[in-house]
Amino acid sequence: MKNINASIITIGDELLIGQVIDTNSAWMAQQLNAIGVSVKRRVAVGDSKDEIINAIDEEGNLSDIILITGGLGPTSDDITKQVLCDYFKGKLVMNEEVLNNVKYLFEKVFKKPLSDVNLQQANVPDVCEVIQNKRGSAPGMIFYKADIIYISMPGVPYEMKGIMEKNVIPLLKEKFKLPVIIHRTMLTAGIGESALAEVISDFENELPKEIKLAYLPTHGMVRLRLSTIDFDKKQTKKNIDSYFNKLKILTKNYLVADADETIETVIGKLLKEKNKTVSTAESCTGGYIAHLITSVAGSSQYYKGSIISYANEIKTQLLGVHENTLSVHGAVSEETVIEMLNGLLNKLNTDYGIAVSGIMGPDGGTPEKPVGTVWMAVGNKKNNLTQKINLRFERERNIEVAASMALNFLRKFIIDN
Amino acid sequence: MKNINASIITIGDELLIGQVIDTNSAWMAQQLNAIGVSVKRRVAVGDSKDEIINAIDEEGNLSDIILITGGLGPTSDDITKQVLCDYFKGKLVMNEEVLNNVKYLFEKVFKKPLSDVNLQQANVPDVCEVIQNKRGSAPGMIFYKADIIYISMPGVPYEMKGIMEKNVIPLLKEKFKLPVIIHRTMLTAGIGESALAEVISDFENELPKEIKLAYLPTHGMVRLRLSTIDFDKKQTKKNIDSYFNKLKILTKNYLVADADETIETVIGKLLKEKNKTVSTAESCTGGYIAHLITSVAGSSQYYKGSIISYANEIKTQLLGVHENTLSVHGAVSEETVIEMLNGLLNKLNTDYGIAVSGIMGPDGGTPEKPVGTVWMAVGNKKNNLTQKINLRFERERNIEVAASMALNFLRKFIIDN
Repeated sequence: MKNINASIITIGDELLIGQVIDTNSAWMAQQLNAIGVSVKRRVAVGDSKDEIINAIDEEGNLSDIILITGGLGPTSDDITKQVLCDYFKGKLVMNEEVLNNVKYLFEKVFKKPLSDVNLQQANVPDVCEVIQNKRGSAPGMIFYKADIIYISMPGVPYEMKGIMEKNVIPLLKEKFKLPVIIHRTMLTAGIGESALAEVISDFENELPKEIKLAYLPTHGMVRLRLSTIDFDKKQTKKNIDSYFNKLKILTKNYLVADADETIETVIGKLLKEKNKTVSTAESCTGGYIAHLITSVAGSSQYYKGSIISYANEIKTQLLGVHENTLSVHGAVSEETVIEMLNGLLNKLNTDYGIAVSGIMGPDGGTPEKPVGTVWMAVGNKKNNLTQKINLRFERERNIEVAASMALNFLRKFIIDN
Repeated sequence: MKNINASIITIGDELLIGQVIDTNSAWMAQQLNAIGVSVKRRVAVGDSKDEIINAIDEEGNLSDIILITGGLGPTSDDITKQVLCDYFKGKLVMNEEVLNNVKYLFEKVFKKPLSDVNLQQANVPDVCEVIQNKRGSAPGMIFYKADIIYISMPGVPYEMKGIMEKNVIPLLKEKFKLPVIIHRTMLTAGIGESALAEVISDFENELPKEIKLAYLPTHGMVRLRLSTIDFDKKQTKKNIDSYFNKLKILTKNYLVADADETIETVIGKLLKEKNKTVSTAESCTGGYIAHLITSVAGSSQYYKGSIISYANEIKTQLLGVHENTLSVHGAVSEETVIEMLNGLLNKLNTDYGIAVSGIMGPDGGTPEKPVGTVWMAVGNKKNNLTQKINLRFERERNIEVAASMALNFLRKFIIDN
């Protein structure tokens, strides 16, 4: 059985001038890996005929499956459909089913008048299999050429995901005899990439060559991933599991999760298990911790709410921080975060709480409290723990790292209390 | 003068299995465009010698500048340095300056013990120019071959950005005679991509071919971008400005900003101009609106704080929503968001406020209030406006779209009040 490779081509000038971040490719790669398709390359090109053709040619030489997104919008800068039609030597013809879908979407879902431009979405190459797009007006298209399958999808993530899940993944599973790609990932915190490498260097040296180890740093934490490709599902799984268990023992002091999970998901599970609730009092993180917690579906079961106290008057009025504490110790101090935490727990009456106050930059730093200084407290009504961290990134990343460190601080407190 | 093209190669298995989203490429593309370098392609490959070499070969045929990120970490899955060293026929030698930097970083910045693995970062190919990395232990490397410049940088965004800003951009400006690429971008809201295309179809048809128009949808809004490349800076600027002004007039009913700005930046400017403050009461968006507002540096000047009332008891206790309102109309209702808004304005004493309550999914929908139903209110102590929206995405995108629609609703209220 041969390895099945895929290439992902994303099309759009906006990708080359950096006006949008490509989130589609990562999602598509995850889906492909999950069914045993190896992603060989990802290429982004502009809305240019020559560049699109060049990319299709090149990737066709490398891969069995070419997934193409973008450039299918109704406006004239989008040329992917015409280029594909010419490349596969077809002509555009009106497709009744697409037409009905476009009409339906505009009448019933978007509730907007249907224009000529939208109607043109129903013209498709006569050399492709059409995939109906239930979430938008641009259909997906499948082309075949010399054993290679080319699938074009809209670049709108919500539409692309619908087509991938409903059509593309089932089609690929049916067309190809796929091997097993197994990844096992864990999340660690409190140790850097190189220090972690020292801790597990013997383990790494002894790994058989069919098992790969990767270090994936993320917001001040490191994910470790073991991966392997094989055709005998049962044996492979057993083999990688045994190495994964060894790795868990070696990293036990830093282990947050033994799956590819985020810290907010781990906390959600812990709280559900213990049937406890949490709230947050955020200053410098400005609601980002609350956002992470509530990005988990079902978080209303354990998350009650937050007080975002950006201004000092909100710290005193809503969280009961003493004016005196603020004037003597400052808003970014151990004393302030402890009072914020206690005020929060009283006011929102949750089992656990997090309080964070810091300076995220670029302005607001002082010699004693430079940009990146963050105090955090976690606790319940009986106990609390505090810590000071010093971050050295730009504003956006300081917020992200402070939030994930606060969540990990909370995670440890929940386990012990 | 010839057009100067660049390719961006990102290296790492994690990109091909979708475990990380590539944010570096977009940022690098922005920086290159700003100095007049056109980005031709972006390619992502795995940590594989053959694939890295293949990508360097291919991009070397297309572009004058090849920027490479990733695969420079201290651990054994990172092979970029060795591959580049072999490709450019060099050998690794210890670099005193890098060694001192690594020692300095571990002693003074990271405050962690320095390991053998870290010391190896000081070994660099003897055929490259070394770029000191002030933010991490892996140095940047510049290679030259047949008029093409290859620059390798670490994949950690913070480190890559430091090297790009301090070294790479100044170097490229010095080495190449660069043309002018001008983009002018506006942000519109309240109209879809195809309806907008209808509104400006005459304008689009009359555009000279050297000016390109692109539609860039983003979280329920559409950015419009005019771009052109030219060598006579003054004339080009005048020309594109005149078309941009025409476009502003045509889209005036939908125009949020006449620059490439986010809605949260626009609101920040408005509030600073008016010397007014804002706060938010969020249920379903769970702090994401607060996060967007506070992601803008200097937002403490106009943002006081928020009450995230995920649980109904927080809505009643902290925001003064009546139990009766919740039981009769439900938490997702016009009545509830008005009471949330009034409670917020009283409690936080800000000039303006936003209140949002909805069902983000995947669970929690009912026949009358399906997943995606969101009520929002914006106002001050005298007036308020409410609206109901129906979203049809998955949880994450529902949160993002609801937040940007609420911010745009607020923006309009601030302008009129």
